[in-house]
Amino acid sequence: MRRGPKKGRYDRASIDDVLDRGLLAHVAFADGDEAVCIPMLYARVGDTVYIHGSTASRAVRLLAAGAPACVTVTLVHALVLARSAFEHSANYDSVMVFGRFALVEDEAERLRAFEAFTEKLLPGRWDEARRPNAKELKATSILALEIDEASAKVRSGGPDDDDSEDAELDVWAGIVPIVSSYGAPTASPGLRQGIPVPESVKRLLRAPPG
Amino acid sequence: MRRGPKKGRYDRASIDDVLDRGLLAHVAFADGDEAVCIPMLYARVGDTVYIHGSTASRAVRLLAAGAPACVTVTLVHALVLARSAFEHSANYDSVMVFGRFALVEDEAERLRAFEAFTEKLLPGRWDEARRPNAKELKATSILALEIDEASAKVRSGGPDDDDSEDAELDVWAGIVPIVSSYGAPTASPGLRQGIPVPESVKRLLRAPPG
Repeated sequence: MRRGPKKGRYDRASIDDVLDRGLLAHVAFADGDEAVCIPMLYARVGDTVYIHGSTASRAVRLLAAGAPACVTVTLVHALVLARSAFEHSANYDSVMVFGRFALVEDEAERLRAFEAFTEKLLPGRWDEARRPNAKELKATSILALEIDEASAKVRSGGPDDDDSEDAELDVWAGIVPIVSSYGAPTASPGLRQGIPVPESVKRLLRAPPG
Repeated sequence: MRRGPKKGRYDRASIDDVLDRGLLAHVAFADGDEAVCIPMLYARVGDTVYIHGSTASRAVRLLAAGAPACVTVTLVHALVLARSAFEHSANYDSVMVFGRFALVEDEAERLRAFEAFTEKLLPGRWDEARRPNAKELKATSILALEIDEASAKVRSGGPDDDDSEDAELDVWAGIVPIVSSYGAPTASPGLRQGIPVPESVKRLLRAPPG
């Protein structure tokens, strides 16, 4: 299953596509004798996956120190209902990136990563929001992982028992899509009067659910 | 942040609620010098989280051998848009269960776990589908992790800059809910004529999105 990002049926473009469509990554690493798996916001820029966190965070310190890590992003698409309980499953795309993070020290790269986090959450938002100030930059560690060793776990299509004797059973089989979409935005209680919903959010709400 | 499941503000009932609402878990463990994080279907029964996989799977073998593991289930609820790029975030509930899996050998417990997997994917489905046969049971390892050491990572509410001087900025702030729902079921190409969409799926489609 594991292969280099540039070969095999799950190529680098597919890996980037999953990384770019996901919102949260699950980041795994060892903490002493324990395995830890934490959900984190992230962003891809070129060949690099960035994460960020408080400089005081234990996870950030362990990852910055070079703990072996795995960043997994999973998109779920459907329930898969077979005739047999055994063949029930879910359709999804999942990408794993393996390696060791490094602390980003270059201020220009750190600012580009901030921009990528913001744009990933909501395209167009970077130009609407206030940019990070010196205090915020100082409080934040940004970590970079090169997309060098990556792997995918994918399931797609219908149930696997169409061609089995189970197909004779009186049991419905097929898939039920799982659709993710955005609801109506809610203004923050402290929002100043007279500030309209921004273009970034309007565009997001016009996009088809996926 | 870490605490026993029966104390602290994130109590055992809340942990169970997240585990029961999630569809996929991310399971982390070490494989030699590497960290691995794999999406897996799972189910909770009482104090136990079950996962399953092929007896031939490397991940299943490592976990069955007692590798320290972390099972993380994350539910994402909203984009959080602040005035400052720095305060942008997402609202979510995430539960981590730490420990070591054990192989389930008791046939009655294995069958209960199969039922739980099927019912978690789609309530009511266990009574519609064909039950696992001897061959399927033999090909499948079921692993159990006791919910003993658990932890939560939660973000909720609006952006954090309502009370800051940023609230004076001419930038919209608030949240955009992320809503997950089910699309129209698609029958498998090999489905026998005359089999209607089952009650389980009809009930699912009537349930409100969440």
